[in-house]
Amino acid sequence: MDIATRVWNHKWKIDPIVRSLIDTDFYKLLMCQSVFRNRRDTQVTFSLINRTQSVPLAKLIDEGELREQLDHIRSLSLSRGESTWLRGNTFYGKRQMFRPDFMEWFEGLRLPAYHLERVGDQYELTFEGNWPEVMMWEIPALAVLMELRGRAVLHDMARFELQVLYARAMTKLWEKVERLRTVPELRIADFGTRRRHSFLWQDWCVQAMLEGLGPEFVGTSNCLIAKNRDLEAIGTNAHELPMVYAALADGDAALARAPYDVLADWHEEHEGNLRMILPDTYGTEGFLKRAPDWLAGWTGIRIDSGDPATGAEVAIRWWQERGEDPRDKLIIFSDGLDEEKILELYAQFAGRVRISFGWGTLLTNDFRGLTPGDRLAPFSLVCKAVSADGRPTVKLSDNPNKAMGPVEEIERYKRVFDVGQQDAMEVVV
Amino acid sequence: MDIATRVWNHKWKIDPIVRSLIDTDFYKLLMCQSVFRNRRDTQVTFSLINRTQSVPLAKLIDEGELREQLDHIRSLSLSRGESTWLRGNTFYGKRQMFRPDFMEWFEGLRLPAYHLERVGDQYELTFEGNWPEVMMWEIPALAVLMELRGRAVLHDMARFELQVLYARAMTKLWEKVERLRTVPELRIADFGTRRRHSFLWQDWCVQAMLEGLGPEFVGTSNCLIAKNRDLEAIGTNAHELPMVYAALADGDAALARAPYDVLADWHEEHEGNLRMILPDTYGTEGFLKRAPDWLAGWTGIRIDSGDPATGAEVAIRWWQERGEDPRDKLIIFSDGLDEEKILELYAQFAGRVRISFGWGTLLTNDFRGLTPGDRLAPFSLVCKAVSADGRPTVKLSDNPNKAMGPVEEIERYKRVFDVGQQDAMEVVV
Repeated sequence: MDIATRVWNHKWKIDPIVRSLIDTDFYKLLMCQSVFRNRRDTQVTFSLINRTQSVPLAKLIDEGELREQLDHIRSLSLSRGESTWLRGNTFYGKRQMFRPDFMEWFEGLRLPAYHLERVGDQYELTFEGNWPEVMMWEIPALAVLMELRGRAVLHDMARFELQVLYARAMTKLWEKVERLRTVPELRIADFGTRRRHSFLWQDWCVQAMLEGLGPEFVGTSNCLIAKNRDLEAIGTNAHELPMVYAALADGDAALARAPYDVLADWHEEHEGNLRMILPDTYGTEGFLKRAPDWLAGWTGIRIDSGDPATGAEVAIRWWQERGEDPRDKLIIFSDGLDEEKILELYAQFAGRVRISFGWGTLLTNDFRGLTPGDRLAPFSLVCKAVSADGRPTVKLSDNPNKAMGPVEEIERYKRVFDVGQQDAMEVVV
Repeated sequence: MDIATRVWNHKWKIDPIVRSLIDTDFYKLLMCQSVFRNRRDTQVTFSLINRTQSVPLAKLIDEGELREQLDHIRSLSLSRGESTWLRGNTFYGKRQMFRPDFMEWFEGLRLPAYHLERVGDQYELTFEGNWPEVMMWEIPALAVLMELRGRAVLHDMARFELQVLYARAMTKLWEKVERLRTVPELRIADFGTRRRHSFLWQDWCVQAMLEGLGPEFVGTSNCLIAKNRDLEAIGTNAHELPMVYAALADGDAALARAPYDVLADWHEEHEGNLRMILPDTYGTEGFLKRAPDWLAGWTGIRIDSGDPATGAEVAIRWWQERGEDPRDKLIIFSDGLDEEKILELYAQFAGRVRISFGWGTLLTNDFRGLTPGDRLAPFSLVCKAVSADGRPTVKLSDNPNKAMGPVEEIERYKRVFDVGQQDAMEVVV
């Protein structure tokens, strides 16, 4: 018994869920640097949105505890070791991915204030301020809410009941790993930070994947885990870039150009496997049809909504039309994956195009079926930019159930981006 | 990180499997006291018998490692705290169960030499000397061989593979517990020391049973675990008493009397729930038919071979014939139980007789189906008295597959005890 450790542990007033500013997705840092360079003064509002209204977060989670966790995150700053890792490590084969001016800013960063209010059985949680600061709230805010919800459910369970719960969850994940390891030359990464069951559980999942899949497990989106476990940090860019660029655009012509402006900025900064197109923000078909030729030269496309097989076929056709060989291209699937879907997509596309999988919530939070009433099942919680310099943002997506924004703006965007009929798909996670 | 603990742990040359002389079954101590009182100078030989020859123990277990473990057991002596517990605790409602002269002897006990030889793919392991000393080898010898065999299999497994193995084993046990907790007023004890997967695993199983079943889990046969976890130590007597008494008997008349002489000695020493008849050593039917009337006044019968339901019906009929009300009597089932069998026997006998279950190997070592080739499945290993004062012992049992002894002696015992046709049943554990 290490008495000092035990006494030290008892000195914590809370058990902090997020204990590091780099306990976040790698792509947030890449995007943050890009925003810091190109749009640092943009005022944005990010807002938490629980798409699964049947999970009554405000009934499950004590407001005081939630505030303590959020306040703890505001007390965090980049540690010396974290800064050294970001400055000294090689990311995507590149040294000094993060420029000195950005690192200096990041070292001084403390997360800005939050606004929290209970509305019915849900929480309204928003963050306002400069884009580079506010955007860093997304992942920790989601992780805190997911884990507090889990803790609320776990609270009433007895010691061995808990052990067995985790035993079952481990078995469940391992059975998925055993299925995945039957596939030769799979490429799969952990994208499960935001909606993980807990930090420790994500860390366990990452290690299990590493042992079970070996080099086929290519890394994790979580910077802290990548650093601690000496893994590749994985990630490129997300919808918030085109959403904010679009909101800031003056008039329809600028709006139509905005998604490409984003990638033009990105093109200047990044090359190789970081040149990944995320085409679905305002409809994949239209985006690709109107895309400038230099985009066809990019490395690949990430498919994050709609039916993934359809999206991949669209991407392959587009490359062929632009005279590119799809076998040189990379498709990253990252939406709602589970091992069954991964195997299915692999079977359909292996050999036709390079493929990789960003496995998220059902890697790090598959507690479905493990508790009575399924009270630990993951649910669809997001934290999105909802306005930029006072203008609302809009997302259409390839799945109308993932669309967001004011109705009249959605109509305008649909017109500008020429989005027709869309197939609705259930959003589970 | 507790450095001192880590350094201390590294100082162990081996990882000892048995670390205490009371890491043994409670009934061994009760019987040992009885033997110490009544037959302390009897010279006995105990021998290890692997009934599952398909498990090649000598191929799996390194002889040097086995010797190290056995030598470590020979270095053990009763600790002060263990002695205090045995002297001061209440067992079966009785203070000072262990008399001062026995305790003094026990405090001075070191286990006697062993003889180990490899014969083909099996080990020949025997112990010779005074009965009270030699008999204390039985449980630790079995536990060492079972755990070394497990370690041999676990040795090649990777870290997370191991975690998942235990996760699966935990889940498996918990599912049994969940089934058992549906039964009202069950009485069940851990009898799984000898063929446990490992000490730590038995300890986990006991704690899981305690949490899952609450007061329906009545205790453990393992003295060390009972002491550490503040549980009841459970157990009465075993076949070695009648087997040695019978071997020592001069002539057929004395032989026929021997099983009752054992219980006459026991009758003098114990009362209440310790007055349990183990009738199957030379056939249950004949034993009960010829039993003196005072035995019908005993509390109950333990059924340890043959078809348990048949054995229980025979016991109930016997009590009725002797004018006893079976509902005042206790039947303990202890042979090859698993949760399915427990539920079945409970359904058949609850209300007709008091029943209790001594759950052994499939409680503490059910790793069936958890490894490729089922290399961790439990197997049937026993350690028995094979001779007493130079005469071979004999066991007939209610299952001829459990019989042991020289052929001509078995025939003589069958004649003396009037044992007819017996039904053979597979011995799994």
